[in-house]
Amino acid sequence: MRIALLGGTGDIGQGLALRWGFDTSHEILIGSRDPERARTKAEEYETELDSRGIETEMKGFENAMAADRADVVVLAVPAYHLVDTIEAIDDRLDDETTLVTPAVGMKRDEEGFHYNRPGAGSVAALAADAKPEDVPLVGAFHNLPADGLANLDREFEWDTLVFGEDDDAKSIVTDLADEIEGLRPLDVGGLANAPEVEAVTPLLINVAVENDDLHDLGIRFE
Amino acid sequence: MRIALLGGTGDIGQGLALRWGFDTSHEILIGSRDPERARTKAEEYETELDSRGIETEMKGFENAMAADRADVVVLAVPAYHLVDTIEAIDDRLDDETTLVTPAVGMKRDEEGFHYNRPGAGSVAALAADAKPEDVPLVGAFHNLPADGLANLDREFEWDTLVFGEDDDAKSIVTDLADEIEGLRPLDVGGLANAPEVEAVTPLLINVAVENDDLHDLGIRFE
Repeated sequence: MRIALLGGTGDIGQGLALRWGFDTSHEILIGSRDPERARTKAEEYETELDSRGIETEMKGFENAMAADRADVVVLAVPAYHLVDTIEAIDDRLDDETTLVTPAVGMKRDEEGFHYNRPGAGSVAALAADAKPEDVPLVGAFHNLPADGLANLDREFEWDTLVFGEDDDAKSIVTDLADEIEGLRPLDVGGLANAPEVEAVTPLLINVAVENDDLHDLGIRFE
Repeated sequence: MRIALLGGTGDIGQGLALRWGFDTSHEILIGSRDPERARTKAEEYETELDSRGIETEMKGFENAMAADRADVVVLAVPAYHLVDTIEAIDDRLDDETTLVTPAVGMKRDEEGFHYNRPGAGSVAALAADAKPEDVPLVGAFHNLPADGLANLDREFEWDTLVFGEDDDAKSIVTDLADEIEGLRPLDVGGLANAPEVEAVTPLLINVAVENDDLHDLGIRFE
């Protein structure tokens, strides 16, 4: 499988790149608006994996070039860049491409972080409205701590919630999640169930802020 | 400590009554709008505990009578009865009473359960607006599966998120949560952080509905 991580130079992109690089043999393409930055980070990830005995080749591209070549395109960008990013790549997508959104909208006040729910209903709904109609969209990887994911010394047992309208696309993403050691994908239905998933991320941050002995938290349903 | 469980005949009330009965020696008062029903359920809980070798006395009262006698008053009622219930007992509360809300507002559509966020900001904010000013309010016990809690054969490792503006009251509720075997209280700041906590409950139900092998789910932050 060829996976493009758009915004793959950012924190959650880095975490997914390193974990898929470490745990699988999928081909990972690092995307960025700045192709030079994408190449630099791809080399960094290669070096990190090489230091752990994993020989892999990661290539960096401008986002549209990365998306053009991929079977699965992960929109690992901030929520406020989600629609821009889709519009910049939409002519590179087709019904054979699975689009994945891990994006969450948050705002902060004096008390903590909060879910900033868009008028469309969810961040995923913004992506669903912006994407070409025939391209399937799946939500996944929302509630993972980027630093914990990127630290390959960190072992975990985390769940990731997978939602979407296209069962084949959900199945592809579920398998990709399952291949990451310690990550358990759980089905959470369709796009309408996105808000409650996206709202968990600010909660994870608030729990980590308020409890000194907890850091880089994921969740487990049990 | 004397704990009144208002709506203690309902599912989450039953779970808390049985767990505190099993794991602690606190005095538990079962409250209901119907005192006869409260007495019947209190006897049921006694019988269940007795069958497990725990001798305890639980008494049933009309809600206001139960609240009058308690140090901690848990509003284990549906969200749409929360304000009514507070108004029916408010002259029995004072600044020595800790009021606890585990209430969550949910609605359901074809896709699943959703957080029904009140205009006040959260269900807890409705309670904060309705209660006498000097009575401290704490949110806790939102994301626990009632059936799993009430089944004393079920072992678990669940977290419960505790929020509120009064640190002493939070500390009392945190200790009460900690005394339930397998339950870990986690601080999640003030009342403004309530919506993300309340929104987890419909998510727990959606995950259980969509995954055949998962039932009566709680969450664990790790």
